[in-house]
Amino acid sequence: VSVTLREVGEFPLIERLKARLPAPSSRVLVPLGDDGGVCRLTGEGEVAVSTVDLLVEGIDFVQALPARLVGRKAMAVNLSDLAAMGARPAGALVAVAAPGTTELSWVESLYDGIAERAREHAVDVLGGDLSGMPEGAPIVLSVTALGGALPEKVVRRAGARPGNLVCVTGTLGDAAAGLDRMRSSGTLAGKTAPDLFDPLVLRQLDPTPRVEAGLGLAGLSTAMIDISDGFLADLGHVCEASGAGASIEAGKLPLSRALQATGPDALSWALSGGEDFELLFTVRPGDEERARAACGAVGMTVVGHMVRERGIRVLQADGRVLDPPKRAGWTHFGPVENL
Amino acid sequence: VSVTLREVGEFPLIERLKARLPAPSSRVLVPLGDDGGVCRLTGEGEVAVSTVDLLVEGIDFVQALPARLVGRKAMAVNLSDLAAMGARPAGALVAVAAPGTTELSWVESLYDGIAERAREHAVDVLGGDLSGMPEGAPIVLSVTALGGALPEKVVRRAGARPGNLVCVTGTLGDAAAGLDRMRSSGTLAGKTAPDLFDPLVLRQLDPTPRVEAGLGLAGLSTAMIDISDGFLADLGHVCEASGAGASIEAGKLPLSRALQATGPDALSWALSGGEDFELLFTVRPGDEERARAACGAVGMTVVGHMVRERGIRVLQADGRVLDPPKRAGWTHFGPVENL
Repeated sequence: VSVTLREVGEFPLIERLKARLPAPSSRVLVPLGDDGGVCRLTGEGEVAVSTVDLLVEGIDFVQALPARLVGRKAMAVNLSDLAAMGARPAGALVAVAAPGTTELSWVESLYDGIAERAREHAVDVLGGDLSGMPEGAPIVLSVTALGGALPEKVVRRAGARPGNLVCVTGTLGDAAAGLDRMRSSGTLAGKTAPDLFDPLVLRQLDPTPRVEAGLGLAGLSTAMIDISDGFLADLGHVCEASGAGASIEAGKLPLSRALQATGPDALSWALSGGEDFELLFTVRPGDEERARAACGAVGMTVVGHMVRERGIRVLQADGRVLDPPKRAGWTHFGPVENL
Repeated sequence: VSVTLREVGEFPLIERLKARLPAPSSRVLVPLGDDGGVCRLTGEGEVAVSTVDLLVEGIDFVQALPARLVGRKAMAVNLSDLAAMGARPAGALVAVAAPGTTELSWVESLYDGIAERAREHAVDVLGGDLSGMPEGAPIVLSVTALGGALPEKVVRRAGARPGNLVCVTGTLGDAAAGLDRMRSSGTLAGKTAPDLFDPLVLRQLDPTPRVEAGLGLAGLSTAMIDISDGFLADLGHVCEASGAGASIEAGKLPLSRALQATGPDALSWALSGGEDFELLFTVRPGDEERARAACGAVGMTVVGHMVRERGIRVLQADGRVLDPPKRAGWTHFGPVENL
């Protein structure tokens, strides 16, 4: 039997959703449910690191996708931002706006997914808000993530110096190829269920925030960002913030077997596809092995180096410069098909 | 000439909006614009206090209202939550989702309002997100507020004991009466401009968070909440959390002259109207004068006392119990007319 949010009512709904979240840890002095959550967010000598992301139905997700995965991703993308600062995640605040006609079970599964990722990373959900939406309006999800870091270990986008190695964790391009596959198969239009056995689709729907690698790289990498807009776009942010340029060897970009099997588009996905949520960072050449150890099983690949001259050059195996691909990253405020 | 968000584009828009926010204070190590903001959020021995609120067009505001006031209110309601915990505000994160057809000038004014309230309370805007929305969808605004408090001074909803005095700051009911007036005058429907010389309308559109009073009451009041759902509804939250009841004298409720002039509905607005954003708190009888001093010019009124027996009784001047008004507070997930 289908039950809508309006049928449950605000206060019973709050109780039902709260019950799905992890029990407060010993850091929490006042849990969710008061005017504010109170938490020992930062350890001795640490400063607070914070980030917020909105996810909008029709742009960042569709209701045809499993809500649990939408919840996992909403939390993951925020934890990824903390990872890119070299911060230890500690708390989160979650707000959802949904029309009263929304299925209760969908929102409950959304919270299950949020709770899963919170538990995995020992994150306390410290606050929340639920709001109605006019009928027919999209569901909107806001997640704020809070963490702690020693100030001298925080890694910014600025800080990359000429000669530093440009490195990435994991593999690139999978998420964008997975999105393309879901678009082609009619999954985004709600016509078919997502193929969760397809590793590309899974990378798009359930990205893993590189929290441990980020912590290991704190105080070691000279600049860091997580790849959300796409490798070239995010490297561009690092170059701009650092006042430098980069030289990238296309042949060194780490491509998964699944991505290689997609054919000639593979490199283009890796260069320009968004939402990999891998870490892109720079280290001094002498720190390469320490950085590799910090990345552990996730793996790290050196894909190029920073140069004095502004701009990004992508070199092919034969040494020729690759024409910049047309698709330079996500564009927001675009049509819904940009999902 | 009207310019839309889509015409400006995402990155220039971010720069334009960032420029309107206050310059980072000395507490900020990494300002807005990196993957996360980094800030010395808490002072020596303090813990972090956090809260989040969503504001939805068509439910919490309409585009016909001055955007600057919408921004001021979005920040104010979050600072009000921190005040109700007895916390010192320090940081905020602001996320906005809007269709690409939204007027740039409206969103710029929104940020001006956010920035005004941030400056007034020395709040650093540490992070943000901008997202598109499908055309025709409402604008959604998410504000997270962060603050610090000494753990022993944090004030919860729980903690009110039988015999404690029930107190409120300022006056009650104005905001709800102002909302009613805007509904009657066609302002909510966009037919007339809001009358900003009407004190009731102004209380609804531009509430003042009782930050100083909240700080003064920290470590002094036994329980505290801000009045957002309505006096009776929020007193109900305190009673429930504290495992007690309350006896209220209707004749003692502080009504502004403007509200009294509205006629026989005045008491009902004061009891059940939402969004006053005054503080509702309890103190031991011996602490009444200290509490009054802490509230300063905002003023404090004792409106009743806590009792052992559960439930809230409202007594009229002749000692008879007032029938509970039908409207027990805001209901969310309701139709848009609930604004």
